Amino acid sequence: MRSSLSRRGLLGGIAATGAWTATGALPGAASAASKGRAGELPSAVDVVVVGAGISGLVAAREVAARGRSVVVLEARDRVGGRVLNHELADGSVIEAGGAFVGPTQDHVLGLCDELGIQTFKEHTAGNSVYFSRGIRQTYQGTVPPDPLVLPDAGRLQLQLDEMSKDVPVDAPWLAAKAAEWDSTSLHDWVAQNTVNPDTAKLLEVYLQPLLGADARDVSLLFMLWYVATAGNEQNPGTFERSSGTENGAQDSRIVGGSQLIPLRMAEQLGDIVALSAPVRRIEQLADRAVVTTDRGQVSATRVIVAAPPPLIAQIDWAPLLPPKRLQLLQRHFMGALMKCDAVYEKPFWREKGLNGFGISDARRCGWPSTTAPPTGAPACCWPSSAAPPGPTGGTGRPRSAGRACWRGSRGCSARRRSTRSTTPSRTGRTNAGPTAARWPIPAWGRRTGSGTRSVGRSAASTGRGPRPRPTGPATWTVRSVRASVPRPR
Amino acid sequence: MRSSLSRRGLLGGIAATGAWTATGALPGAASAASKGRAGELPSAVDVVVVGAGISGLVAAREVAARGRSVVVLEARDRVGGRVLNHELADGSVIEAGGAFVGPTQDHVLGLCDELGIQTFKEHTAGNSVYFSRGIRQTYQGTVPPDPLVLPDAGRLQLQLDEMSKDVPVDAPWLAAKAAEWDSTSLHDWVAQNTVNPDTAKLLEVYLQPLLGADARDVSLLFMLWYVATAGNEQNPGTFERSSGTENGAQDSRIVGGSQLIPLRMAEQLGDIVALSAPVRRIEQLADRAVVTTDRGQVSATRVIVAAPPPLIAQIDWAPLLPPKRLQLLQRHFMGALMKCDAVYEKPFWREKGLNGFGISDARRCGWPSTTAPPTGAPACCWPSSAAPPGPTGGTGRPRSAGRACWRGSRGCSARRRSTRSTTPSRTGRTNAGPTAARWPIPAWGRRTGSGTRSVGRSAASTGRGPRPRPTGPATWTVRSVRASVPRPR
Repeated sequence: MRSSLSRRGLLGGIAATGAWTATGALPGAASAASKGRAGELPSAVDVVVVGAGISGLVAAREVAARGRSVVVLEARDRVGGRVLNHELADGSVIEAGGAFVGPTQDHVLGLCDELGIQTFKEHTAGNSVYFSRGIRQTYQGTVPPDPLVLPDAGRLQLQLDEMSKDVPVDAPWLAAKAAEWDSTSLHDWVAQNTVNPDTAKLLEVYLQPLLGADARDVSLLFMLWYVATAGNEQNPGTFERSSGTENGAQDSRIVGGSQLIPLRMAEQLGDIVALSAPVRRIEQLADRAVVTTDRGQVSATRVIVAAPPPLIAQIDWAPLLPPKRLQLLQRHFMGALMKCDAVYEKPFWREKGLNGFGISDARRCGWPSTTAPPTGAPACCWPSSAAPPGPTGGTGRPRSAGRACWRGSRGCSARRRSTRSTTPSRTGRTNAGPTAARWPIPAWGRRTGSGTRSVGRSAASTGRGPRPRPTGPATWTVRSVRASVPRPR
Repeated sequence: MRSSLSRRGLLGGIAATGAWTATGALPGAASAASKGRAGELPSAVDVVVVGAGISGLVAAREVAARGRSVVVLEARDRVGGRVLNHELADGSVIEAGGAFVGPTQDHVLGLCDELGIQTFKEHTAGNSVYFSRGIRQTYQGTVPPDPLVLPDAGRLQLQLDEMSKDVPVDAPWLAAKAAEWDSTSLHDWVAQNTVNPDTAKLLEVYLQPLLGADARDVSLLFMLWYVATAGNEQNPGTFERSSGTENGAQDSRIVGGSQLIPLRMAEQLGDIVALSAPVRRIEQLADRAVVTTDRGQVSATRVIVAAPPPLIAQIDWAPLLPPKRLQLLQRHFMGALMKCDAVYEKPFWREKGLNGFGISDARRCGWPSTTAPPTGAPACCWPSSAAPPGPTGGTGRPRSAGRACWRGSRGCSARRRSTRSTTPSRTGRTNAGPTAARWPIPAWGRRTGSGTRSVGRSAASTGRGPRPRPTGPATWTVRSVRASVPRPR
C-alpha cells in the first residue's frame, strides 16, 4: 500500500522549507498543469484526492508534506475548478471564475504568500453607479444613496451583522435560533423587516450576484453564516466585509489571475496531479478503497473527495453512502451566476470619475463591475447575472441580460474589443455549477456529520498554506470527505 | 430502425381489445416479472423507456399499442419502483410503498379496471386516536377535535381549498399569485395564518407523512398544487380529498397489493421489460439515440425517461442536457418517509372500537396507521415517519421513532408477529428516495420546458389506461422526457 509515486519526497521537502520562492510570471505553468501526469496512474497510493480545485490541491500538498503518497484525480483537462483565468488577446488575464481576495481571508492570502503570488488593490477611486426606476445616480460606499431605502438598508445591515455573531462558523446549526432562522427564507425575512418594498428589491439585486442565488433560495441562517464566515479570529464577519470592496471580500485581486494559485500548486505537485481522469466509482474493500477512473484504477487507504455535492452524488459508491447522506447530497445545489466580459483598450470610465462598479434594480443584472489588470489595460467590464431556475428569479438568458444591462449603462459601446461569456458559469458534466453549493430551506443536517460543512464557502477563500486552522474551509473539505468514505466493518 | 421485438403485435392486439381479462390472483406474475427479458437486449427499437415504475410501464404499453417497438430498461431486478408488495408470512401482501387509491384518481382506477384488478374500501368504522401533549383522545373525521386548534385548522383547510382553485394542475406557475406563493414556505404561511401555535404543529405533523417533507421544505404553491391535483375534471381538489380516507386519497386499496398493477403490466409486456439493466449513458446521434446499460446497448429514435430527477441527473448524457435543465435537476429532491410494519394475527383494535388511524404531535411519528388485507387477517400497523435531513425536521432514526410511537399507543405489544421496515424508504443506488420529488423554494422553472411537470405526483395516481388525458401524469412523463432528449441539430 506504499506509494508508487517518485516525487513525494521532493514535494515534502519543498513544503517543509516553508515559502516557495517562485515570483512573478511562471512561464509554462498553464501548459504544464494542463498536461498533468502522463501515462499510467499509480496502482496504489496512501491517499487519493478527487478534484483538482484549490481545496483538492491544498489537501494533496498537505498529505504529501507529511510524507504520504498521493494522487489527485481530476475530471477536466485543467486544474482550478471554479477558478479559471481567461486570457485576453494581449496575453494578460482576467478571471472567468472567482477573482477577489480580502483582508480576513487569511487562508488564501497565506497560500499566496507561500506560492510567491502577489495581489493588487481593486481600483476604487471614483463613484459607483446606481440605476433605479430608470434613473442614474452616482454614489460612494456600499449602499446606494436612495433616500427612500437608505435607512431601511442600513438597519437591515446592522441586524444581519448582529445576528451573525451568534452563528458559529463551523457549526451554524448550533446557533440558539438556528431552527427559526433556517425556517425562514432570506427573502421573507427582508420583506418582514423593511418598511419600503424597494429596499427588499435593492438588497436582493445586490445579494443575487453575491450568493449566486435568489434571496428566496437561501435561508436566513445561510445568509448569517455567510456573513459570519467573512471574519477571522480577530475580526467578526460583517455584511460589509462579506460584500464590500475596500477592506471587504472584493478588496484585492491576484497578479496573474486567481487561477495562478492552483496552477502554482499543480506545478509543485507535478505528476501527483492526473488530469482527464473522471472518477466513476469508489469501492470500499476491507483494507482499502479502489477508485475507478477513465484512466484506470487506483487503490488507497484514504480517499478525499473535494468535489461539489452534485458531482459527488454521481459517483457510483460501493457500498453506497448512507441513505441520509445521499438525501443530503440531493438537497445541495449549486448557485447560478454568469459573467460576461466586454473588453476595452483602457478603463475609460475612470476618466469620467467612475470606479466601474454599478448596481441596477433591473433585476436581470445586479452588478455591472469593471476590472482591469494592474497596468490598467486592457480593461473589462463584467455584467454579472444570477439566473437560478425559478418563476421570478432567473431570466434564463443571462448573457443577453448582461449585454442589455451594460448597454443600459451607456457610453461603453465604443472601443469594445470582444464580448464573451465565461466557462465556469456553465453547468456541465464536470462542472456542477458556477458558484459554491447552496442548500434548500432548511439547510443543516445536524446528524449527518461533517459532510454538510464542505459547502458554501467561496472559492477565493478555500485554499491555504500548510497548517490549516480548525475552522478553515480546506480542513472542512478534507475532514468531511474522509468521513464520507465508509470505513471497513 | 424497426423493431427486433416479436411481441409488439401481440401486445398491440391486446391493448386494442380494451379490457385485459385476468381476474383475482395472478400466480407466477411476480416471478415472471422479476425475471423479465432474458438474454441479449434488442440492438434497435423505436422507443426505449428508462424505468419500469408504473409511469414507464404505462408509457411502454401505449407505445406498443400504437405498433411501435419498445423496450423498458429497469435498473432493479423487479418492476414497480416505489410501489412494492411486502409479502407476509401467510402469503398475503401489504404495501411497502404507495398503497391507496381514491375516487378522483381516474387514471390509476381506469388502469386497474383494464387490468382486472379490484379494490376494497379501507376500514374506517370506529374512532381515530389523537395524542397531544401526552393526552389520548378518540375522534371521528379528518381533524382531531382539539378545541384549541379546531377553528384554526378548519379555516386553514378552507383557505387552502379556495386558493388551490387558482392553481392550474398542469402549469402551476401560471397561477396569478404563483411568485408570491412560491416564495413562501408552507411553514411560514401556516404560522402567519394561525392564532394558536399548536395548530401549526398539528398541521405539520399531519402533512409530513402526506408530503414526505417538512412544511418548511415545500412552498405554499407546492401545497396548493398538491391539493389541486386531488381533483379531476368533475371535482375540484380539496385538502380533504388529498388527505382523507373515505372519498379521499386513502379511500381504497388494491386486492393483492398495489404492486399488482405494475406486475400485471409487466406480465402483459413480457420480454419488452428488461430488468437489472441500469442505464449509464444516453447518447444522441444524428438520427438516433444510443442507450448504454450494464446489459448492452440499444439504439432508438425516442427515449422516454421515467425515472426520478436525482437518478436522471446521474445518467451520462451526451451531448449534455442544457445547463438550465441540469440545474433544475439539481434542485429536485425526493421526499423522506418510512413505514414500519408491526404484524398481528388480527386487527384487534377494531374490537376496541378503533379504526386504526392515529395522529400524534410527538413529531417523530405522524401517522400510526393500521391496515389489513380484505380478510382482516393478518393485520399490520405502520407508524409512518418522515425524516428529512434538517435541524428540526428529521430524527435520523425513523425506524426506532416508529417503534417508539407505536409503543406509545399502548395495548399493541401482544400478538405481534414481526416488525420490519420497508424497502422503498431507503435512498439507494436505484432508488432516489421513498416518495415523489419535491422542489426547493422556489419551485417552478418557467422557462425550462415541460420537464418540470414530471415530478410531484404520487405513485398511486400515476398510471392509467390506453388514452391518457392531456393533464394526466403519465402523459407528462412521456412528454417531458421526449423534450429532455436533445434533438439532432
